[in-house]
Amino acid sequence: MKKSALQQARAAYRPQMPIVLTGAVKVVEGKPTQSVADQEAIKQLFPNTYGLPEITFEKVSVSEPSKPINVGVILSGGQAPGGHNVISGLFDGIKTINKDSRLYGFLMGPGGLVDHKYKELTADIIDEYRNTGGFDIIGSGRTKLETKEQFDKGLEILRELDIKALVIIGGDDSNTNAAILAEYYKAIDAGVQVIGVPKTIDGDLKNEVIETSFGFDTATKVYSEVIGNIQRDCNSAKKYWHFIKLMGRSASHIALECALQCQPNICIISEEVEAKNMTLDQVVDEIAQAVADRAAQGDNYGVVLIPEGLIEFIPAVKALIAELNDLLAAKADEFAALAPKDQRQWVIEHLSEENAKTYASLPEGVARQLTLDRDPHGNVQVSLIETEKLLSEMVGKRLKEMAEAGKYNGKYSTMHHFFGYEGRCADPSNFDANYCYGLGFTAACLIAAGVTGYMSSLRNLTFAPVNWVAGGIPITMMMNMERRHGEMKPVIQKALVDLDGAPFRKFVKEREGWKKNTCYTYPGPIQYFGPAEVADQPSMTLVYEQKNRKY
Amino acid sequence: MKKSALQQARAAYRPQMPIVLTGAVKVVEGKPTQSVADQEAIKQLFPNTYGLPEITFEKVSVSEPSKPINVGVILSGGQAPGGHNVISGLFDGIKTINKDSRLYGFLMGPGGLVDHKYKELTADIIDEYRNTGGFDIIGSGRTKLETKEQFDKGLEILRELDIKALVIIGGDDSNTNAAILAEYYKAIDAGVQVIGVPKTIDGDLKNEVIETSFGFDTATKVYSEVIGNIQRDCNSAKKYWHFIKLMGRSASHIALECALQCQPNICIISEEVEAKNMTLDQVVDEIAQAVADRAAQGDNYGVVLIPEGLIEFIPAVKALIAELNDLLAAKADEFAALAPKDQRQWVIEHLSEENAKTYASLPEGVARQLTLDRDPHGNVQVSLIETEKLLSEMVGKRLKEMAEAGKYNGKYSTMHHFFGYEGRCADPSNFDANYCYGLGFTAACLIAAGVTGYMSSLRNLTFAPVNWVAGGIPITMMMNMERRHGEMKPVIQKALVDLDGAPFRKFVKEREGWKKNTCYTYPGPIQYFGPAEVADQPSMTLVYEQKNRKY
Repeated sequence: MKKSALQQARAAYRPQMPIVLTGAVKVVEGKPTQSVADQEAIKQLFPNTYGLPEITFEKVSVSEPSKPINVGVILSGGQAPGGHNVISGLFDGIKTINKDSRLYGFLMGPGGLVDHKYKELTADIIDEYRNTGGFDIIGSGRTKLETKEQFDKGLEILRELDIKALVIIGGDDSNTNAAILAEYYKAIDAGVQVIGVPKTIDGDLKNEVIETSFGFDTATKVYSEVIGNIQRDCNSAKKYWHFIKLMGRSASHIALECALQCQPNICIISEEVEAKNMTLDQVVDEIAQAVADRAAQGDNYGVVLIPEGLIEFIPAVKALIAELNDLLAAKADEFAALAPKDQRQWVIEHLSEENAKTYASLPEGVARQLTLDRDPHGNVQVSLIETEKLLSEMVGKRLKEMAEAGKYNGKYSTMHHFFGYEGRCADPSNFDANYCYGLGFTAACLIAAGVTGYMSSLRNLTFAPVNWVAGGIPITMMMNMERRHGEMKPVIQKALVDLDGAPFRKFVKEREGWKKNTCYTYPGPIQYFGPAEVADQPSMTLVYEQKNRKY
Repeated sequence: MKKSALQQARAAYRPQMPIVLTGAVKVVEGKPTQSVADQEAIKQLFPNTYGLPEITFEKVSVSEPSKPINVGVILSGGQAPGGHNVISGLFDGIKTINKDSRLYGFLMGPGGLVDHKYKELTADIIDEYRNTGGFDIIGSGRTKLETKEQFDKGLEILRELDIKALVIIGGDDSNTNAAILAEYYKAIDAGVQVIGVPKTIDGDLKNEVIETSFGFDTATKVYSEVIGNIQRDCNSAKKYWHFIKLMGRSASHIALECALQCQPNICIISEEVEAKNMTLDQVVDEIAQAVADRAAQGDNYGVVLIPEGLIEFIPAVKALIAELNDLLAAKADEFAALAPKDQRQWVIEHLSEENAKTYASLPEGVARQLTLDRDPHGNVQVSLIETEKLLSEMVGKRLKEMAEAGKYNGKYSTMHHFFGYEGRCADPSNFDANYCYGLGFTAACLIAAGVTGYMSSLRNLTFAPVNWVAGGIPITMMMNMERRHGEMKPVIQKALVDLDGAPFRKFVKEREGWKKNTCYTYPGPIQYFGPAEVADQPSMTLVYEQKNRKY
């Protein structure tokens, strides 16, 4: 592998460690925990791993000799910057326990465990990947570990390799499944601990006890870099409205963080749209009004940030999609027999009045996409909708109406962008490099402590890493019961943008000014070297969330 | 303006200067020059500014006292990183000549000169913009300075402000017009010098004497960062073919530089496609074969770089577009009267056999776009064609045929990206920050030397800045005669990718390996701090071009 100059320089970076992890540790148990909701139901489903105490580690002067331990590790789901550092921290951690410990990586995600595909991760391999982005050290995948058959099949290879602990690096679903696997292996006395690590660039795996998921910091910094660059272009040319869609379907944390970083003219937050029960037309009206207001002061340019999942948060569109799915399933043959030019009218005539109105308001291309491109189950593929183009087109239409009514007089040219893949595999920022390495090392400490069903945890993250508190959180503590595919399931509660939270409130306080005036900030690219205020800062979301926290 | 931490830290950066510009200088004249071609024609058009000598500056110990001078500056055309540093170097340069010198910026491009829109650039304004990206200090625009009326109108404001020299920062067209303006002001004895500065991220304004245009270095580094990140994602998920289009319509320098930086599986170079007289089908075949070869070894993923201008370099498509323009102009009414479903067949029947074949091979959406979206002159808008989607769709179709013939057995899922606006306004790399500041300072020295019709020049750019050679090149030296809109015009010769040049030869030597194997390199984001091998390297294009140069 030919390495870039930065890769080579970055290989030498030594992550900053919490002081407690720099020597021998002892386990300090907190009080027994409860799940965030549905305590009885969760308790029944996790008889062996429910109600465990939170754990923190404290430094002690004398270390007990420990036996070597074999550990397996899995990368699950979408890539997030820092995964390699979790693995290198874990590696260094189990080698600290005993130099003869071994680490096995299961290949291409949870499927590797079930299919017995793995490789041993030795020091020379680990050293190639320290402080690098990507999940390519062992690959990742989206197979869900859910069934007893998978668990038993996995146990075969764990036994064969004498693996006593499995670390699953993943998002909320993967960690939910880690808890179920932990419970199962405990119940059958398999002798395998399961530890989770909180990963996702989306930032929606966090709660009272997990301050952030790893990868969010780096990914949002990459997006903020390119958004800032586009804003500077926008402010130099002064002739385009840039509509920028940002990855993140189930929450708008990414868009909010980028807005706090870059101060664009407009940023839509899906959670607010849903809470206010806004229609698509209302979202379009708001943008069009901002375009008109800026045009009135001579500014025919601007930047709009749009979260990828917006469409699914608009109650009216959600209702439309649900009815469309039913309608097209029930009358598939009748619909298929229509000439393309007659389909639109047919759909309008067969929908309920409210949904027909929403459907009719959509640009023709989008409407066609909703009825034509369906997934194998016949469902509308919402993710294929190019929301950034949908919105800019509808705004353009509205502006024409406003112009005819004498309420708008300006030029409206648009550019579209979608950022997602650009940030998921960036080299981790110093924050993520430190955080991930620490999470991996802490996972090793949890393994040494003999616990299972825990998530690796580092807290007080706005302090310098040396002051971070390391420990473990029982995964059941983060769970509640939710309906999934018609069944009630125990799942980790997803963290949406909190409309009462400090990051959103800060945004609300500033956004009218950003809309009217041009207040762009240009964060620039992630710096790995240089002054601490440039290179070592955590996300603004984290900073605002923790600003008024009591310690 | 709220500044990011990086903006604040970066404001303190002091560009590295060529040693000759750190004190008083004297002018050393070289031999008289000739234009690169059409010497007689160019000489006739530029009687007052043709054949001037190259100039270099040498350091001298004693400086003569100089009078203050008022200078105007214009940013012309698309943004490129470093424009603000040209202006700050120019500012510092004329203040070094005499502290009472003044700098005026004309607003929103050359139009500002004609319309008398300007602002004085004082020290406090300049200090806000040092080492930043964007052209927002005075804005840019695309008005072409071409007519005597514009020149005379401009002269009014230059006289009013007592401006004795005008610096035009622009690409090949803008510098061509700078030369024409210089000649005109010289001919009428207006007493205004005109100096050009070579700007364009496209990298196509360079020649024997101008080693590179500014902005190319930074922009390609931003693109290489995000391409590298996508490659790492690609290599982790192992399930997508990413088709990445890169800005640059008239040359493929950007794509080539990014390929040298990132080592993608495939990179198309338009100049090669044209030289080999390839058809669109042949380009598609080549990509499809690479996809099939990788699939055969189990790798259903990869990265393809595509220069924005590709379509216009394919001789068959060029011929098709030319005939389509004529056809649709001649039979506009007949075509407009057709039902949309009949248009495709009508076009095929009315084109010559060869062009009809090319047209029929295009995906329907692209074909429709070619006939529907025409510019105000009725011409096909080639820039609207989403080449990345066109190619990936055609490759998919080809793979289906290959699968049916038993020649391909794999999965083919695609992702599309277009990078352009992300890089044009990035904070300049250390290279561009130094280069631009030096170009601006050198422009001031050329003004002090009393010359006109020169381009500011720094050479030996792969050496440390302290060793760069500063001077001026007569713009007429870079010119030849070319047909533009049916007329022969004097223009600066555009630098296309040299298929015999070292950068392209390096690429050709490596590309078969990159295609088959996964040799991705991950350059990471631009670093402004840190080790010199990370933060201070010029582009690989420049390094390869100068590797075997004799000094």
